[in-house]
Amino acid sequence: MTTVITSEETPALAGWARSITRSALQVMLSEASRPDILSLALGLPAAELFPAEAYGRAAVHVLETEANALQYGPPSRVLKSQIVELMARRGVACREEQIFLTAGAQQGVNLLARLLLDPGGSVMTEELTYTGCQQVLEPYQPNVLSVPTSAESGMDLDAVEAHLRSGARPAFIYTVTDGHNPLGVSMSREKRERLVNLAREFRVPIIEDDPYGFIHYEAATPPLRAFDENFVYYVGSFSKILAPALRAGWLVIPEALSMHLSIIKEASDIDTGTFSQRAISAFIAAGHLDGHLEKLRREYAARRDAMLASLGRHFAGGARWNVPTSGIFIWVELDSDLSTLELLKLALERERVAFIPGQVFGVGGTPRANCMRLNFSHPSSERIEEGVSRLARCLSIIERA
Amino acid sequence: MTTVITSEETPALAGWARSITRSALQVMLSEASRPDILSLALGLPAAELFPAEAYGRAAVHVLETEANALQYGPPSRVLKSQIVELMARRGVACREEQIFLTAGAQQGVNLLARLLLDPGGSVMTEELTYTGCQQVLEPYQPNVLSVPTSAESGMDLDAVEAHLRSGARPAFIYTVTDGHNPLGVSMSREKRERLVNLAREFRVPIIEDDPYGFIHYEAATPPLRAFDENFVYYVGSFSKILAPALRAGWLVIPEALSMHLSIIKEASDIDTGTFSQRAISAFIAAGHLDGHLEKLRREYAARRDAMLASLGRHFAGGARWNVPTSGIFIWVELDSDLSTLELLKLALERERVAFIPGQVFGVGGTPRANCMRLNFSHPSSERIEEGVSRLARCLSIIERA
Repeated sequence: MTTVITSEETPALAGWARSITRSALQVMLSEASRPDILSLALGLPAAELFPAEAYGRAAVHVLETEANALQYGPPSRVLKSQIVELMARRGVACREEQIFLTAGAQQGVNLLARLLLDPGGSVMTEELTYTGCQQVLEPYQPNVLSVPTSAESGMDLDAVEAHLRSGARPAFIYTVTDGHNPLGVSMSREKRERLVNLAREFRVPIIEDDPYGFIHYEAATPPLRAFDENFVYYVGSFSKILAPALRAGWLVIPEALSMHLSIIKEASDIDTGTFSQRAISAFIAAGHLDGHLEKLRREYAARRDAMLASLGRHFAGGARWNVPTSGIFIWVELDSDLSTLELLKLALERERVAFIPGQVFGVGGTPRANCMRLNFSHPSSERIEEGVSRLARCLSIIERA
Repeated sequence: MTTVITSEETPALAGWARSITRSALQVMLSEASRPDILSLALGLPAAELFPAEAYGRAAVHVLETEANALQYGPPSRVLKSQIVELMARRGVACREEQIFLTAGAQQGVNLLARLLLDPGGSVMTEELTYTGCQQVLEPYQPNVLSVPTSAESGMDLDAVEAHLRSGARPAFIYTVTDGHNPLGVSMSREKRERLVNLAREFRVPIIEDDPYGFIHYEAATPPLRAFDENFVYYVGSFSKILAPALRAGWLVIPEALSMHLSIIKEASDIDTGTFSQRAISAFIAAGHLDGHLEKLRREYAARRDAMLASLGRHFAGGARWNVPTSGIFIWVELDSDLSTLELLKLALERERVAFIPGQVFGVGGTPRANCMRLNFSHPSSERIEEGVSRLARCLSIIERA
């Protein structure tokens, strides 16, 4: 999929950009977004649950009451204080000065990489990691120390510790603590404490990417940030708990870094208060967020259960999967060594159903050619049953071939 | 203003970030935004002219009629086609496939730098250049080839040509063709053609940053992009012609680069269609943009004239200034060699009036310690007269000292 731009057409590109390729996610997006495809692929929220009317009222209220609603200005302090309260409900104590507003979690990770990582430096991630993190790292061409991970318990902390004890000092450790992307797993409390202790002992910061932590189906464990305020940089987002098209998220960081991040963000897209920030703030002030979160947890739990039941019906004896306690993904590993890339081709062509093959998330380590990530937040329970049964049909065709 | 983060507090930062400083613009912003300050400093649109009501109606219309208004999805094709029409009115022929949607002009420049510039590479700018461009370049620590420029005719193309003929091949040439920031000057048609010919001959792309080109007070000359579609990368923005808090802008680029830019943007903040894009598109579809642009041109022309008249009354014989035909800035050069940084200190303390000292924009070349940039779009004509007269009082105090 590499598009090489010849010098006949256009000027020279930066070295790393010359061999740039379309991400698997983008290819999937274009395929899976065809209206005839039943998609279990992307991590989209359920569109029918968006609180469009309440958000519209909040937006109009801001336009009617704030003279500078559309003007340049500092990031919204009201929203920052509301985020402090939101974090408190997750067990995180923080102050308004530690909140840094972003255009979503992806920008949060990107700004932190800019702040922490030198070109050619090193970072630590799991062997299976969010593709957006891989994209952030690409221009730095870093040395990636990848550690094993699993859908049962997440990051292998023995491997993390071994790297650090042998002298490795990555610019940061990247992980998704709750509702891991792609594995769906949430880290145990014991592991959280151990990981934070390692970060503190070796003075290596953790980027804790947490787009899914507010969507939990059992009593939640506090995020890593609850255990340390100096070596955990927390990345939050309104994309999954409110709406992705608003492009709003936040960091919880040591206050000493906020000036640096503000300058990096100013270079990226002007560090200005956005209309989205103001409207989200009015939406929260009107008391709509709690009810919306309750609704999401209830509805997504039902969809998760529907997917687990469908997998039990159609994949029993042919695959294993985990039961996520947070987030929007289930990780499925086939018992056979069939390639899920092959399965996806057939699934798109023959049954018009999509998922993400496991290898897309691979960063070094064991290839996961027989794995796939399934999303249960976007399709209804009925569509989930339909999609999983179609997938099972494709699998049996390949197995017979 | 350097804040050094010690290793006691937090982990190591990337090399370039260790000595990061607050930009002069940010310092000014915090000072000049004090409610008691009469600011001629920042390039803010007039808040009272924002079409808040019409934009609110457009936003609600989108929420009521588009099921995926708040969802992830591809950048708005409708808005792209509307931008094609908008560019046509500037004399630029382009296609929807050449439009790339951004979160504003600053992001546009930042994405292009990421695409084109290697760390330690070289770029060409004017000796006086937009601070946001300087901030984009900083992490690359590039070799900046700076060429002379003036408030009378803009970029010195003899100097550009000399660099190129002697073998320099910068990753790009950055310029603001219309309503230059900070100089207020617009390039003549002859110079535009010559600059584009140089770019083509030496295969060096131009980043044409054009936040102000739609705000012109005389018949406008087409932007550089009208003269070449391969070596001019045009950067447009809705911040000045609609509202900055919406964070929406666009690039006009060779189609072959759009995949690359999409991947770079995906790493930055997810390349998704935003709610702002959809609402702006509805605002334009309802026919509101043309009337709004007319209103801005009329009102800003009156404010420009008010500032020129005030300068004539209070600075005649003590300073020179240009008459901008586009944009929102006037560049003032004192006849004496007094430092405008000193003037600003006194102005803030004694007369509570702000502007931006010329040296903030300096990139190599002659220091412009006796110059200042004045904005006329944000304050009313009455406030402009008041602000300029206060500045003149400060100047006479310094001159007598």
